[in-house]
Amino acid sequence: MAPGVAEEQIAEVASRLRLMGLAVHRSDERGRIVLGVVGDLGSLDVDDVRHLPGVQEVVRISAPYKLASRAFRAEPTLVMVRNTVVGGNRIAVMAGPCGVESEEQVEETAVAVAAAGATILRGGAFKPRTSPYTFQGLGEEGMKILRRVADRHDLAVVSEVLDTQHVAIAERWVDILQIGARNMQNFALLREVGRTRKPVLLKRGMSGTIEEWLMAAEYVLAGGNTQVMLCERGIRTFETAMRNTLDLSCVPLLHQLTHLPVVVDPSHAVGVRDKVPPMALAAVAAGADALLIEVHPHPERALSDGAQSLDPPLFVDLMRRMQAVAVAVGRTL
Amino acid sequence: MAPGVAEEQIAEVASRLRLMGLAVHRSDERGRIVLGVVGDLGSLDVDDVRHLPGVQEVVRISAPYKLASRAFRAEPTLVMVRNTVVGGNRIAVMAGPCGVESEEQVEETAVAVAAAGATILRGGAFKPRTSPYTFQGLGEEGMKILRRVADRHDLAVVSEVLDTQHVAIAERWVDILQIGARNMQNFALLREVGRTRKPVLLKRGMSGTIEEWLMAAEYVLAGGNTQVMLCERGIRTFETAMRNTLDLSCVPLLHQLTHLPVVVDPSHAVGVRDKVPPMALAAVAAGADALLIEVHPHPERALSDGAQSLDPPLFVDLMRRMQAVAVAVGRTL
Amino acid sequence: MAPGVAEEQIAEVASRLRLMGLAVHRSDERGRIVLGVVGDLGSLDVDDVRHLPGVQEVVRISAPYKLASRAFRAEPTLVMVRNTVVGGNRIAVMAGPCGVESEEQVEETAVAVAAAGATILRGGAFKPRTSPYTFQGLGEEGMKILRRVADRHDLAVVSEVLDTQHVAIAERWVDILQIGARNMQNFALLREVGRTRKPVLLKRGMSGTIEEWLMAAEYVLAGGNTQVMLCERGIRTFETAMRNTLDLSCVPLLHQLTHLPVVVDPSHAVGVRDKVPPMALAAVAAGADALLIEVHPHPERALSDGAQSLDPPLFVDLMRRMQAVAVAVGRTL
Amino acid sequence: MAPGVAEEQIAEVASRLRLMGLAVHRSDERGRIVLGVVGDLGSLDVDDVRHLPGVQEVVRISAPYKLASRAFRAEPTLVMVRNTVVGGNRIAVMAGPCGVESEEQVEETAVAVAAAGATILRGGAFKPRTSPYTFQGLGEEGMKILRRVADRHDLAVVSEVLDTQHVAIAERWVDILQIGARNMQNFALLREVGRTRKPVLLKRGMSGTIEEWLMAAEYVLAGGNTQVMLCERGIRTFETAMRNTLDLSCVPLLHQLTHLPVVVDPSHAVGVRDKVPPMALAAVAAGADALLIEVHPHPERALSDGAQSLDPPLFVDLMRRMQAVAVAVGRTL
Repeated sequence: MAPGVAEEQIAEVASRLRLMGLAVHRSDERGRIVLGVVGDLGSLDVDDVRHLPGVQEVVRISAPYKLASRAFRAEPTLVMVRNTVVGGNRIAVMAGPCGVESEEQVEETAVAVAAAGATILRGGAFKPRTSPYTFQGLGEEGMKILRRVADRHDLAVVSEVLDTQHVAIAERWVDILQIGARNMQNFALLREVGRTRKPVLLKRGMSGTIEEWLMAAEYVLAGGNTQVMLCERGIRTFETAMRNTLDLSCVPLLHQLTHLPVVVDPSHAVGVRDKVPPMALAAVAAGADALLIEVHPHPERALSDGAQSLDPPLFVDLMRRMQAVAVAVGRTL
Repeated sequence: MAPGVAEEQIAEVASRLRLMGLAVHRSDERGRIVLGVVGDLGSLDVDDVRHLPGVQEVVRISAPYKLASRAFRAEPTLVMVRNTVVGGNRIAVMAGPCGVESEEQVEETAVAVAAAGATILRGGAFKPRTSPYTFQGLGEEGMKILRRVADRHDLAVVSEVLDTQHVAIAERWVDILQIGARNMQNFALLREVGRTRKPVLLKRGMSGTIEEWLMAAEYVLAGGNTQVMLCERGIRTFETAMRNTLDLSCVPLLHQLTHLPVVVDPSHAVGVRDKVPPMALAAVAAGADALLIEVHPHPERALSDGAQSLDPPLFVDLMRRMQAVAVAVGRTL
Repeated sequence: MAPGVAEEQIAEVASRLRLMGLAVHRSDERGRIVLGVVGDLGSLDVDDVRHLPGVQEVVRISAPYKLASRAFRAEPTLVMVRNTVVGGNRIAVMAGPCGVESEEQVEETAVAVAAAGATILRGGAFKPRTSPYTFQGLGEEGMKILRRVADRHDLAVVSEVLDTQHVAIAERWVDILQIGARNMQNFALLREVGRTRKPVLLKRGMSGTIEEWLMAAEYVLAGGNTQVMLCERGIRTFETAMRNTLDLSCVPLLHQLTHLPVVVDPSHAVGVRDKVPPMALAAVAAGADALLIEVHPHPERALSDGAQSLDPPLFVDLMRRMQAVAVAVGRTL
Repeated sequence: MAPGVAEEQIAEVASRLRLMGLAVHRSDERGRIVLGVVGDLGSLDVDDVRHLPGVQEVVRISAPYKLASRAFRAEPTLVMVRNTVVGGNRIAVMAGPCGVESEEQVEETAVAVAAAGATILRGGAFKPRTSPYTFQGLGEEGMKILRRVADRHDLAVVSEVLDTQHVAIAERWVDILQIGARNMQNFALLREVGRTRKPVLLKRGMSGTIEEWLMAAEYVLAGGNTQVMLCERGIRTFETAMRNTLDLSCVPLLHQLTHLPVVVDPSHAVGVRDKVPPMALAAVAAGADALLIEVHPHPERALSDGAQSLDPPLFVDLMRRMQAVAVAVGRTL
């Protein structure tokens, strides 16, 4: 409470907090009055308390997310998809092109990545593009292509949904619903995927804090869908030498705060092919549970993001090197 | 082109650009080769060129947005809504509570803000909340309340849509469709409001660059909806002393780059009541075409964002002071 | 304290805090243990407590700066320099070229800015330049030029010091010692200017938080020099459309937190001439106590920062408009 | 050039550039005029050209640093210090306390880190502290302690200089002069260490871009001191869950742009002990040439930064794990 606060103001604040079902504990020390609040704070907006008359500062001690927290579930969540487990000792690899262009392109990629050891095929069917005038993806047709190709090679499929109306379509064809960075706080979409029972790959927003990201996961979990993976793909900072700044330190931090598996996407973060392998290796060393890597059979002909796609030989080489680093940190790949 | 590039690579790059319908002009100077490209670049993704073999760097000289640019339309766009024009000499004021709570609350607010000179009533019916456990708004019922109250006081209504499925609902009840900061790059939603003929208030994303913001406006304009207003509401920076950093310098910059009107929302940016008036005055001085201000009849009882809401007496006082600054910079309010 | 902390750990933490001369108060509620700490926290590094065994979180409630705080001094500090007072009702204007190039250039500028109503002449003699190969300033000779010209026109002089060894030189020739953004946390330099009795203009670092900035002022104040002005000049954010992002919301925030006058430098923030006037007007409306504006008699010939310099006619026009806005917000200029 | 620019303006701009010794090449295409400029651009400030009448945009194609660039020197620079080489296949480890507190403390640390395989002892004697009221270091006495202890264990010493007046002192006692993050653009200090022939460890500023950082290195190199190491220690972003955001992607980027060795300091970046090991392993995997790690014999008693210091057993364990990752990526440690 502010210095010199009136007793009535203290009583008023305490009374309002109690009305919200919270326990309030008062402590006076050398004229400084602090009200401690304990209870279910999920419905409390700290800013709504901060402005009550007589309040100087509100400090939140417990985290606002519950289902996503380690306190709620101490054991790591294992996300099961086809014959892959994400979140265990074995590091999973999701690989494929940025955008689905044709069945031939996806087939060629799938052959290569499956042979190299990837078990999940990625590919964009609904594409978020900054400009309304660029290629926007093949839509449902792209998802069907992914499904057919993946089934031929015993791979699972991850693909992005951009809108609530895409979710039912995607449920038919893909194994993992991806929420892109621009939609991390598209709450309607989060609720919609929370209603499904498909695993969700939730990318971090360009300026999403760790806490906001976990709250976004909470939207999915609150719908009853417990199969959520968090995917770091670079944050926006003042540095423009790279497309984004890959925040690998979030990996150990998330492992402390949450039981959900952590995936790293180095391709979107760095934006140029030759920087992808060192950052993929670093992600493995930092403790990532899975990697999401763009692979295109002919990057120079890709309709989108070719600059950051590995070709199959580079991907094979990277898999070999990631394997070595995984072993060095006590895991497999 | 990179130093030492082979002639075949140059020819290949030039050929690919020409296939996209572009004119290519080669310039050689002291061994440095530069290809100048002119034409309709709307469908060109710079990153897709950057990675072609032999290319060292790609520099875009013209802006990627067209319909939003001053080059496309030199005269300012005037957005007409009920009896207000946004974008002319008179500065418009949009005021009201963060969230619609009840008809009484909205009525009390509308009486006050209309008397003080505001002509547009704001209020959230679908609320984007960081936590799934906090108040999420009254939905369509909230929009009906806004409509009824606004009609009684001859006000227009602005309210937010969060999802493509909200757009048809909002079209029935509100005059201006607001796209919130978290949805600045929700491309499905942008397309959907682009199909309507309702004015759109497009808020800047927390980490949205000026260019991305104008590209988001381009999505709406490309759908044939020309009535777009841009609303600065604070960006996310390293500074956490305020909720966000209000970037007022975007106002004169936008007036140079685009013909669309610029609105400033100081309430969300600063997050505390007593900082709203100085930033509102500064926005007027910087050249804003409209202000969006949170007003609540009883901020201390607000269910959301009460901390940043002005009460009616503070709002009346601010209107008087904004009027004085508007006159000082040659405008009216 | 962490959940399940042992009693010995609590005792150990409390004992260490008491050894630092602090009062410690324990509060237990539903198994949650909080230690409240009251006393002179100036010498306490929060991070040093955070890692003690059993501690979960440390929250600082009082500000770490003292001499700079409103709590220490409620009345605004008035900085007196020649016949100007900075911090009172009248807004002061500091104007001049980015860099001192010649006596003719400075003379021509001084004639123009004095006639327009500026009372403090600015000019860089020691120049911080990103590249070692660009013009580094005239050094002491530049300061002598500023002195001679200023004396002819009854102006005060503000100029930057880059190093502890410049301070004694600058003390001889200038009235206000400027600490540039890159040196905001050059603690040796802050101590050195704190030893003088010359007013100090302390620019905010490119990524300096409000708190770090006030702590930097505290270094000067702790040396016994009470004449400190804080100068906002734009912060570094993800947005690169402008050179920097001018954070005008810091003006009202600083007026709440500190008694020191607040100066705004729009020229460095926006980096282009035509954006300077709107941001200068906005700064006046936001409550700035002084403006720092680059003026050059022939901007197109300036050796540095010509792009953001106003020429004399533009400056005269801006002074007239700032005067109007100042009156509108109840001040003079 | 701007659309519709007059021929005289083009001639004037071209003439001014030629006066600076540059070659100018004009290209006209569909009414768009571009002037290509080739030559020694070291002394050209892009902003000074941007504002010339008729100029619309200036795009720099070559990098502004020369001595630091790969183009200047293709082979990696090897920094030699005592019996360590930084920049070769073997990864070097610099370890020790944040601040020198006593000879006992340093001795105890040195015994431990030398036994674990570190070859360079770090320790702060002149400490940059945000507050003027916290422990500021032992100064020259601290450097003497480092020297005596290091000599007993055949270690080299790295320690920070904060001011030009510290450099001569440090030259007597230490082997590597460290420039801290807050002084990355303290140009007077950079020049001063450039005059010495001691290796320099140049930390990246909190908001220092890669280009500014290389330009800061250029200041040292331009003085004739070729022994410069670049040290990433975390940048300031919107994310506050960690003290700073460790930007590991700068490691491969720097290896492409410059021949200088790259050091990573995970301790300052993450700020908490248990996140240091994963980020140290990630740094090795990303290609760092050396690691700078805080080690304290009794972190819980450290006067500064104890929270992020490893104790000797944790450090021994980390060395073993870094060794394994180094081997996995084809290096030694």
